[in-house]
Amino acid sequence: MHKPDASDGSIELAPRRVVIVGGVAGGMSAATRLRRLDEHAVITVLERSGYVSYASCGLPYYVGSVIEDEEDLLLQTPARLHARFRLDVRVGTEVVGIDRERHYVRVRSMDHESAQVTTIEYDKLILSPGASAIGLDIPGYERMRLLRTVEDAGRLVGDLSKTPRSAVVVGAGFVGLETAENLARHGLAVTVVEAAPQVLPALDPELAILVEDELLAHGVAVITGTSVAEVHEWGVILDDGRAVEGELVVASVGVRPDVRLARIAGLTLGAHDGIAVDEANRTSDPDIYAVGDAVEKFDAIGDTMSLIALANVANRQGRRVADHICGRASRHVPSLGTAIVQVFSVVAATTGWNERRLVAAGRRYRVVRTHPMDHASYYPGAESMSIKVLFDPDNGMILGAQAVGGSGVDKRIDILATAMSGRLPVEELANLELAYSPPFSSAKDPVNMLGYLAENMRFAGCDLAEPNEIAELLAHGWTLLDVRTEEEHRQGSIPGSVCAPVDELRERLDRIGTGPFLVYCAVGLRGHIATTLLKGLGYRARNVSGGHRTYMAAQAAKRATASRVG
Amino acid sequence: MHKPDASDGSIELAPRRVVIVGGVAGGMSAATRLRRLDEHAVITVLERSGYVSYASCGLPYYVGSVIEDEEDLLLQTPARLHARFRLDVRVGTEVVGIDRERHYVRVRSMDHESAQVTTIEYDKLILSPGASAIGLDIPGYERMRLLRTVEDAGRLVGDLSKTPRSAVVVGAGFVGLETAENLARHGLAVTVVEAAPQVLPALDPELAILVEDELLAHGVAVITGTSVAEVHEWGVILDDGRAVEGELVVASVGVRPDVRLARIAGLTLGAHDGIAVDEANRTSDPDIYAVGDAVEKFDAIGDTMSLIALANVANRQGRRVADHICGRASRHVPSLGTAIVQVFSVVAATTGWNERRLVAAGRRYRVVRTHPMDHASYYPGAESMSIKVLFDPDNGMILGAQAVGGSGVDKRIDILATAMSGRLPVEELANLELAYSPPFSSAKDPVNMLGYLAENMRFAGCDLAEPNEIAELLAHGWTLLDVRTEEEHRQGSIPGSVCAPVDELRERLDRIGTGPFLVYCAVGLRGHIATTLLKGLGYRARNVSGGHRTYMAAQAAKRATASRVG
Repeated sequence: MHKPDASDGSIELAPRRVVIVGGVAGGMSAATRLRRLDEHAVITVLERSGYVSYASCGLPYYVGSVIEDEEDLLLQTPARLHARFRLDVRVGTEVVGIDRERHYVRVRSMDHESAQVTTIEYDKLILSPGASAIGLDIPGYERMRLLRTVEDAGRLVGDLSKTPRSAVVVGAGFVGLETAENLARHGLAVTVVEAAPQVLPALDPELAILVEDELLAHGVAVITGTSVAEVHEWGVILDDGRAVEGELVVASVGVRPDVRLARIAGLTLGAHDGIAVDEANRTSDPDIYAVGDAVEKFDAIGDTMSLIALANVANRQGRRVADHICGRASRHVPSLGTAIVQVFSVVAATTGWNERRLVAAGRRYRVVRTHPMDHASYYPGAESMSIKVLFDPDNGMILGAQAVGGSGVDKRIDILATAMSGRLPVEELANLELAYSPPFSSAKDPVNMLGYLAENMRFAGCDLAEPNEIAELLAHGWTLLDVRTEEEHRQGSIPGSVCAPVDELRERLDRIGTGPFLVYCAVGLRGHIATTLLKGLGYRARNVSGGHRTYMAAQAAKRATASRVG
Repeated sequence: MHKPDASDGSIELAPRRVVIVGGVAGGMSAATRLRRLDEHAVITVLERSGYVSYASCGLPYYVGSVIEDEEDLLLQTPARLHARFRLDVRVGTEVVGIDRERHYVRVRSMDHESAQVTTIEYDKLILSPGASAIGLDIPGYERMRLLRTVEDAGRLVGDLSKTPRSAVVVGAGFVGLETAENLARHGLAVTVVEAAPQVLPALDPELAILVEDELLAHGVAVITGTSVAEVHEWGVILDDGRAVEGELVVASVGVRPDVRLARIAGLTLGAHDGIAVDEANRTSDPDIYAVGDAVEKFDAIGDTMSLIALANVANRQGRRVADHICGRASRHVPSLGTAIVQVFSVVAATTGWNERRLVAAGRRYRVVRTHPMDHASYYPGAESMSIKVLFDPDNGMILGAQAVGGSGVDKRIDILATAMSGRLPVEELANLELAYSPPFSSAKDPVNMLGYLAENMRFAGCDLAEPNEIAELLAHGWTLLDVRTEEEHRQGSIPGSVCAPVDELRERLDRIGTGPFLVYCAVGLRGHIATTLLKGLGYRARNVSGGHRTYMAAQAAKRATASRVG
């Protein structure tokens, strides 16, 4: 009944022994998949914490009492995993070493201080140790709470029962912002402190600023461009000497691969200090696999390895490793790094690379932007969002996308991530047939619109100008035309612009000079119409990408950064 | 300043004259795109109704007062279109003939009974007449209301002001159900009558039954498998002699291409009686294009032409025709036919072909099903949905998908439609990196799960059994195993099944015989685990696709059909 082992082609007579270090996400996916593929394997899962297969992405919501029962976070227990999958799951069990030659791990129970170290033999070993919080070398660091494990969450819930009035969350990444929101739910005065010049560094600044606005609107204070220097009982002192009150201080400054065991065992690490693996997730030792947050991933955008700490990628890798151990072929798939966060009523999501990263890598790219409604504007409840798509001007491949808004953000990023996986060039977004009825979309879905914009750019010479190009173009004598209405123009415009409403543009031609024209409207639509009109009459013209709204966001982001750096 | 015309390569000196028949969706998309591409063209839009560019998909919601202001349906007016695009838009204007040789259309104003017929010359003519309601040849048909135009909607709103107590909606397609719901919003007792044996014939019966359940739960009566024979002031008489009360009777029995003008002009029609067009949407006359609901579309699934009446397809075709007239290359894209409808709290969506159509065409296909939650079940508000994906067993191409549920149905169908456009084989759905945090999805998104199911089927010999195969397998001596808990088994099971909970299966092996085993659970997940377990031990075993839930839906759909036919 045993299947041949692909690695050497021989038939195994004894049951295959697989030891898995780490019982969350990737580790548990590997374990259960292994069982489904091989009823006879001896599968041992060793987990340092007291829990396996828990919903780490739910922890902030448990802290916020959105998820009321700790039980709900525990997707599986060792007993249930044994009943269903005959897994030997040992929690509170730390692996302290690997004897690669003799194929065994050394384990120690964390329950007993003086516990003896025992050994467990393996044919194949799977490392799924995850990532660990990046520590800060500052006085009082030990006062900071983390939010990585069920135990961490329990401690925070305990803290909250003492009804503190204020909290500082250090780090404004995805989990940091979820934590801030969930602490605010309890009525705490929350301050978020982020070393980068913006919240959500995964996003470009002109989109991240929309999330910062939402935090401020809900009374969460935001301090960016500054680090924490000291932690005290009453709060923190920042690099710049400012004191910020916080009876509770939570660190969420990011994670790094937990490579302690891999390092001890002499496995090769990659350039980003994650465990180096091949396309089958094998480490430098062919009998040792590694999956999840601890390993470096093949990046779908760059010809490079990246650290991508996401549960779905970890799960997929766990499954693929089980497949490989059991001799099944499976196609290797590089990672996009799709992520999403809800911050009060605002949703922010991203896939692929952002502009900052493309610039840093010296990649050629172009940008299209839109500020659509999530569904037909004439149907009640439509919410506005901002989407940015980055693509390769040479082959049209989509390099990344970001969206911030309300409902429907998740859908658009998922469509874009799927288009990226299908290697659809950006202009093909125009041709996607997406489900339309008024409560769900518009006859031209926002994603279709992005495709049309890109098509105009790639094949119709429609040259969009990014907000940061405006100053230089004006310096070179371009005329800045606001093609919105006079009323809109009065309510706020880009300095140096002349109002010439699109619907009157033909009549005003004799009053606006001879160009070249830099055109803008509210979001880019009327600007595009005016630009094609002007070009059709023989003038040079460019439209400002994303219009006044993107310009304003970019300005706000720039101001925010300047005030912090200055 | 003029661009060369691609059709003959010559340079036009006089402005290009384009006449467009029909000012909604495709027609108006063509008109505005033409203007953006050619500032000098003379563009005339002729629309029979009193309105152009209105939101026809919003009409049912206007009737239901969800959209309160008629103005909101009117996306553009002739005056605004002239100001912005210099379009000569003439509403209430019917085209009564085409002189193809002399390149002009004959038009008549609908305002004046005895109006003179005038002519308008064209270089290129675009037909966008849309579809017209299929009429019924029954006594009293003239009493029925339609819901195709703003005028139709206005009449219905007028009817509702007389506070009728009951209504009959004839036709349970997408628009029929939207109409039924919106009439029910006004407190009317609504009966839906559908000639097909189920509501929403675009869906397969075991999914459509879920929508029927929702209608019933909201007090809407449903009569399927029966046609209307007579319409009276008090209601309708059905084929089977039954009388159904309805002070208001609305016909929504579907549409057929409006080919009146095309036929008069001697243009070629297709096999489905739509206007036949080539890949550039040219009719049999190279100077006459046709777009939208009136034309037959290249079908993305079959090597065939189809009638697909969707606003987004019409818009895209309009744009492509403008591109073609102006000499721009554009890739032709076949149509999937993605559609969605909200019926009270239930959402139903589909893309590609359904199973019935695949069977009728004799296509080989396989089915995967899942009944997931739209987001992490531990996060509040998770709603269940049912998804069915049909794929080609030879190459893995996705042939169609349907989903019924609450929130998140639109997202999953859009992801699947995008994967189809990207020609991703079904197992690649497992590798999609979709945005996950608890409010939006699960670490394995429902679409990922479908990919895993298909992968198991295509490459791991996991042979799912469809509910309709159960009887035959039992007749051939298969043992039907319910691997849910004893408690679940007691609450309802498939007749002839033995309960052997998955978590106790290994202990019960000596009591369940030697198989072959047909295994089921609630939705298919535990069934899969039990099936792999049994196969791992050397038994033959198959899992029932979609589990007890799909079985129950299929049974309910079958009973509903039988009761109506019988």
